[in-house]
Amino acid sequence: MNLRFTKMHGLGNDFMVIDGVTQSFNTDPALIKRLGDRHFGVGFDQLLLVERPESAWADFRYRIFNCDGSEVEQCGNGARCFARFVHDKKLTEKREIAVETAKGVIYPRLEDSGEVTVNMGVPRFAPGEIPFVADTDAVTHALDVAGKAVDISVVSMGNPHAVQVVADADAAPVAEQGPLIECHARFPQKVNVGFMQVVSREAIRLRVFERAAGETLACGTGACAAVVAGIRRGLLDSSVRVTTRGGELTIRWEGSGEPVWMTGPAETVFEGNLTI
Amino acid sequence: MNLRFTKMHGLGNDFMVIDGVTQSFNTDPALIKRLGDRHFGVGFDQLLLVERPESAWADFRYRIFNCDGSEVEQCGNGARCFARFVHDKKLTEKREIAVETAKGVIYPRLEDSGEVTVNMGVPRFAPGEIPFVADTDAVTHALDVAGKAVDISVVSMGNPHAVQVVADADAAPVAEQGPLIECHARFPQKVNVGFMQVVSREAIRLRVFERAAGETLACGTGACAAVVAGIRRGLLDSSVRVTTRGGELTIRWEGSGEPVWMTGPAETVFEGNLTI
Repeated sequence: MNLRFTKMHGLGNDFMVIDGVTQSFNTDPALIKRLGDRHFGVGFDQLLLVERPESAWADFRYRIFNCDGSEVEQCGNGARCFARFVHDKKLTEKREIAVETAKGVIYPRLEDSGEVTVNMGVPRFAPGEIPFVADTDAVTHALDVAGKAVDISVVSMGNPHAVQVVADADAAPVAEQGPLIECHARFPQKVNVGFMQVVSREAIRLRVFERAAGETLACGTGACAAVVAGIRRGLLDSSVRVTTRGGELTIRWEGSGEPVWMTGPAETVFEGNLTI
Repeated sequence: MNLRFTKMHGLGNDFMVIDGVTQSFNTDPALIKRLGDRHFGVGFDQLLLVERPESAWADFRYRIFNCDGSEVEQCGNGARCFARFVHDKKLTEKREIAVETAKGVIYPRLEDSGEVTVNMGVPRFAPGEIPFVADTDAVTHALDVAGKAVDISVVSMGNPHAVQVVADADAAPVAEQGPLIECHARFPQKVNVGFMQVVSREAIRLRVFERAAGETLACGTGACAAVVAGIRRGLLDSSVRVTTRGGELTIRWEGSGEPVWMTGPAETVFEGNLTI
């Protein structure tokens, strides 16, 4: 059977995107694993499958699979590529798209620039919601990292983040501190570790050591968590350009109780065809 | 500009193959590097470019580029994919194809099975041709590896190989001994390190620690070197099935002064289209 697909990336987080509206695709984990192999298959971080929605009011359903074949709930970089894909493939003419995901409905919006804006949800700070072991929900906490006190802010963007401010992102101790903070006893479900250099009130440089993955090119929820932490500390304004190793994102947050908006690129690399 | 390409692999050694006969391709190293990136581009070990020959008697010219943009001379797995490609794309009806490469003319042959046979050249054993520091060109040499004597055979297949026989390929000390032998003082240009388990007179299992690359899924010249060493030691017959982590090859050698013939798979993964 012939299968059309599109290879895309958002800040280097790369996707095989399959139109499951005009063609059928069997989500067999063994097949997904085979397609995900970078030498024997197409290669990707995640496979994105676009399907017809189950509810009449949604435009699409969107499913995400890791390259080991397992289905996952959320991917900010993937949502941007999804929105660009359904528009470029003329599957819809809308620029704000209602999408069913495993975790609820999202509304990615295609900007005139070609970038895509995604609502990343409302950040949470209470220690129990991170989860983080602490007596208060202060803006910063002193964390003991191998005998040294490190000032961190904790943020949940649906997943846990510990953000610290550094003088120079390039020189930040990502490889040394990342694993120690990730697995610190005060984070019972582990944590993603952000190192943020404040360049101005509207710009940061960021590196993130991701839970179970190590340092990555770009972490969408990590960018949100860093900007939210910087705003709460009084270091940043409400709209901030975030430079990561994979490229740039714009993060906006209007304060407590409001959602975080992430705007960033979604790039098509090539169109593909294979026999499965 | 639109560019058509085919993604292929031979034993997991993967290639972006470009038809430069019916379309033009600029071999700008920056472009090749961008295409070679596995997250931002197509991703490959090598890019294979098929061009019209310079001589009238050749069928094609074939150029090979690493993913850093540099041009290289030889690739056994690539030659198999090349032969399969020009046949599948109907660029020729011949099954034995005369191809100009940077290192001379090769004649890959497409078998009825779909596998491809390539002449890998005449093996050399003289220490000066490896190069290897030794007084004799004996079939085996005792090499001091961290205080332990390891029996190795040295073979040049255009590149240097040190092959040892092990009881069990899975349990072979590839990670420990590989780097020590690769950089041993008796190999002034370093060496590829093979660990061969003799299963029968017609079958071996092989792992190779490649010079400057570490252990790879499959090394074509390493398979040739191992079989030649095994035949010289009296352990193998003239046609041997070699099982590597990436798949299987058949190696044939009729003895001193004869070339080594390698037969193995060449698989198409997908057809692609991109704008450059």
